[in-house]
Amino acid sequence: VQGTRLDLDRIRAAREVIDPVFLDSPLYRCEALEPLLGCAVNIKLETANPVRSFKGRGTEVVASQLAAGDSRAVVCASAGNLGQALAWSSRDRGLEVTVVASRFATATKLDRIRALGAKLELVDGDHELARERAAAIAQYDGIRLLEDSLDLETCEGAATIALELAPQINPPRTDFPRIEQARIGRPSDRPAVLIALGGGALATGVGYVLKTLAPAVEVICVQPLGAPALTNSWHQRRVVTTDSTDTIADGVAGRIPIPEVLDDLLLVADDAVLVQESSIVTGLRLLLDHAGLVVEPSAALGIAAILEDRDRFAGRQVFTIVCGSNVDLNKYRHWVGL
Amino acid sequence: VQGTRLDLDRIRAAREVIDPVFLDSPLYRCEALEPLLGCAVNIKLETANPVRSFKGRGTEVVASQLAAGDSRAVVCASAGNLGQALAWSSRDRGLEVTVVASRFATATKLDRIRALGAKLELVDGDHELARERAAAIAQYDGIRLLEDSLDLETCEGAATIALELAPQINPPRTDFPRIEQARIGRPSDRPAVLIALGGGALATGVGYVLKTLAPAVEVICVQPLGAPALTNSWHQRRVVTTDSTDTIADGVAGRIPIPEVLDDLLLVADDAVLVQESSIVTGLRLLLDHAGLVVEPSAALGIAAILEDRDRFAGRQVFTIVCGSNVDLNKYRHWVGL
Repeated sequence: VQGTRLDLDRIRAAREVIDPVFLDSPLYRCEALEPLLGCAVNIKLETANPVRSFKGRGTEVVASQLAAGDSRAVVCASAGNLGQALAWSSRDRGLEVTVVASRFATATKLDRIRALGAKLELVDGDHELARERAAAIAQYDGIRLLEDSLDLETCEGAATIALELAPQINPPRTDFPRIEQARIGRPSDRPAVLIALGGGALATGVGYVLKTLAPAVEVICVQPLGAPALTNSWHQRRVVTTDSTDTIADGVAGRIPIPEVLDDLLLVADDAVLVQESSIVTGLRLLLDHAGLVVEPSAALGIAAILEDRDRFAGRQVFTIVCGSNVDLNKYRHWVGL
Repeated sequence: VQGTRLDLDRIRAAREVIDPVFLDSPLYRCEALEPLLGCAVNIKLETANPVRSFKGRGTEVVASQLAAGDSRAVVCASAGNLGQALAWSSRDRGLEVTVVASRFATATKLDRIRALGAKLELVDGDHELARERAAAIAQYDGIRLLEDSLDLETCEGAATIALELAPQINPPRTDFPRIEQARIGRPSDRPAVLIALGGGALATGVGYVLKTLAPAVEVICVQPLGAPALTNSWHQRRVVTTDSTDTIADGVAGRIPIPEVLDDLLLVADDAVLVQESSIVTGLRLLLDHAGLVVEPSAALGIAAILEDRDRFAGRQVFTIVCGSNVDLNKYRHWVGL
């Protein structure tokens, strides 16, 4: 893939500075889901680490660079997962972290940010207001502003997921020839990778590596209908904003896409789809009932996409990145009907 | 450690034949649990694989041996996890599997055994009756009897967990010197590893490797008060049986310890403790609330042991193997009060 801001050598170099606790996350097929979904469902699980989301991969890259430089302070806006990960990566490197978040952000995410010693500033508005405020703090204090998805380190960190994923998709694994790929996937079927779409770091990073190392794969971004700005932008090939968001998937609820990220996404994504809230909830419930996983709504977007278009995925090998599990349990119980 | 049935070279060789999907499981510190437990809690997560328990490590060894030999049929007794794992490992190797289980076994475990194509036979009694019946089938049909914990492959498979664990405990990791070990553990504190004790394969396998590669570690086995046979045997240094079991931890509910396993356990375990059902339930709830993990009761035994003896573990580095997540969700909700 030519023309993106991403580069395979840089992504491989990023992997070298990431704490191994975030690397080589589990990848396994979850057959119990398959009678319900009609395709081979492979889970890349990014929740079994100290911050319970994939964001640690990117913040490790950022923090290791900051630790090697003169500036020891950094500020970011976050719906919660980036802030928690940045706080984790910075703590033992002696960096000073400020996280700006919406006061409506998931409480458990904010609690973890505080517990990890970061300074937390809440704004009386949504994530976009937090982004504005973080930028103002960075300018006023003269410190580093970490902008999710715009700053390449966040994309490169996320992209390391696909360094692990690509060899397992294409070519089919030969070390274990009895791998179940033969059971469901037909040779003519393109494998599909379903990626939660928020700011775009995960989708552009993973998409770039897959298009480079496993070009036969169909890269599909999934966003909630209630927060469709980047998906709409992808389809119209220009930045389209929305006035508000309305989704339980707090991790992907942006309104104002970043032009540079959209440009990359246009080059690495094969499709971007929107899913209903009810499908996200059903996805949460299926992951609990049949995979034993409690996850946050953003992590169920891939399952939601399968639910909304079974014909598209019927019989295919599908991979979905379960990207986070920082969820408010009370809300979760309400959503899934426990 | 001299005198056990176990051997490090054989365990290393076992690792070579295990499908990588079961290897290098996540190991991470879960700080959110620590204010409640008073020690550094490190989780070795054995649930993020196709059979949702550690048993696949052992059945991969068994099945690869069977596939290389003349006998293509195997029978085992199982509370559910061994049977599911054996069915998974055998399916694509063309082996014929019969699993004998108690009709009171966890329904979701039995469903997965059937779904994976194994023949399932239920006995109207507990796990010990299933063991008798499996032995009778093996003798009558002239096929391989796989006996959990007695057959070395099951211990060796489980022991591969400790090949991954030991380098992370002792010596402290130097590749990432900022690792939090400095934060809580004092140099004078022995790290502790808490291991669920059922038939004994997990405890003897993991214990042997730890005693060999990380001898400073305290190896502590944990069993429910309601199924104390092997723990009582360990303390009395002779096989002690019980007439019944009464615990929600179905995966570890045996009554008749195996002498050879007890002999090994006496050499590799530093202690064996019993925990109350209420502590297991609290452990389940803490793992859900603060680690986002839905697990089966056996997997919460380590947390239960900390809860029952906080002074013993205060400030120490503690490692616990979260060994399975095949749980009946309705029962689980009832236990944890959802």
